[in-house]
Amino acid sequence: MNVEKPILEVCLSPALLHLYNTKGAIVVIIDIFRATSTITTALHNGAKCVIPVASVADCIAIGAEIPNSLTAGERDGKVAEGLQFGNSPMEYPREFIAGKTLVLTTTNGTRLLHMIKDADEIVIGSFHNLSALSSYLKAQGKNVLLGCASWKDRFNLEDTLFAGAVINQLESYFDIDCDAARAARHLYHSSGGGDFINFLKDGSHYRRLSGYGLQADMEYCVTPDIHPIIPRLQGREIVALPEDVLTSVDV
Amino acid sequence: MNVEKPILEVCLSPALLHLYNTKGAIVVIIDIFRATSTITTALHNGAKCVIPVASVADCIAIGAEIPNSLTAGERDGKVAEGLQFGNSPMEYPREFIAGKTLVLTTTNGTRLLHMIKDADEIVIGSFHNLSALSSYLKAQGKNVLLGCASWKDRFNLEDTLFAGAVINQLESYFDIDCDAARAARHLYHSSGGGDFINFLKDGSHYRRLSGYGLQADMEYCVTPDIHPIIPRLQGREIVALPEDVLTSVDV
Repeated sequence: MNVEKPILEVCLSPALLHLYNTKGAIVVIIDIFRATSTITTALHNGAKCVIPVASVADCIAIGAEIPNSLTAGERDGKVAEGLQFGNSPMEYPREFIAGKTLVLTTTNGTRLLHMIKDADEIVIGSFHNLSALSSYLKAQGKNVLLGCASWKDRFNLEDTLFAGAVINQLESYFDIDCDAARAARHLYHSSGGGDFINFLKDGSHYRRLSGYGLQADMEYCVTPDIHPIIPRLQGREIVALPEDVLTSVDV
Repeated sequence: MNVEKPILEVCLSPALLHLYNTKGAIVVIIDIFRATSTITTALHNGAKCVIPVASVADCIAIGAEIPNSLTAGERDGKVAEGLQFGNSPMEYPREFIAGKTLVLTTTNGTRLLHMIKDADEIVIGSFHNLSALSSYLKAQGKNVLLGCASWKDRFNLEDTLFAGAVINQLESYFDIDCDAARAARHLYHSSGGGDFINFLKDGSHYRRLSGYGLQADMEYCVTPDIHPIIPRLQGREIVALPEDVLTSVDV
């Protein structure tokens, strides 16, 4: 039986999103340094949900309205004025975040997420959930768009590298006729498929965040499979899919 | 003496052009399959100039107004209705094109070229003039933007591969803090730096043009350094820089 495979594509920047058909697809939001890594970490460590918001003002307003919530976000590597915490995944261990709602504002990841209008599902991708995510995408049998949040619309190395890591796990299960996906796969192979942080040390984002002393943060962000959950947007909240859903897809 | 190097960046799609500062820079238009390969070939084979135009209608109108001109352009792999010739570089040998003006309409390369407003110079890049172009860019000492024409704004492999080939020749002479440039360099290295056509066989554009039987054309388009000239936009015309300019920059 010749079953048609679903399509997998990669969007390298939110400024290119209009070129892709997201209707009926699963869109994966990728913002490795650091929004989607932080979201995955916080949810795996027991956060009730994460609410991604575009502005500091929205963050404060929504935080004020939700009991047991925290507001978080950075601008230029520091906790933004009026917010309580930063963008580092390492700020959200279980003993701190369990049961709480994290209201998070980030520059790039949130913006891309809010641009997706007609997808079937919006899920969060990071090295932390690489294999769980890949298994989930494979099991759904829907078209997939891997959406790189990039940096102010500029192509970045780390989001594309992660897209390549997903493709490396999924290429035989999807129809991939997308040069951005091919480039992502080449980047993944150029990295040696393992020592991601060394590969990224030359990147703009690594260099910028290193200036804020965030090397340990970034090393944490590229550690694969330490948080094997699927964060998914439901209404305005990102929640971890229940474990039985993941078990049934053989994560 | 610590002299500041000029900046080199890569724009992966016309839809991202607004992110780059082209003021005072040299912008290299790259449309490997096949506009910029055809322009380089025609000029090296003695064409008086190439006039790039956006539409078939403009092509016909400008062709009618210029003596000893040819109109050329394809749509869906065939000579467009009302035009005389196609987009293949192999259609323009010296005995045919010498002394003539080629009025050329192409979908992607022409569009990008017309989007550049404030650059110091606009030049044409293709594998055919890879080393000549690199030497020229190095000698000018200006900032450089390598502009990939892409395919209907979608990232493509061949234009980015060529950007990587230029970077491979220039990286020590420029300040390169641009992830797109880093990715292009990685792609170039992934290709082995030599067997370009084999690397591109998996690409969307190769597959599309193969459907029109254009394999030999594409192989020709990735043959390096067979037309060592610098095509440069002057007014509405693209002309080959005089040889003495090239000699003085040690091409």
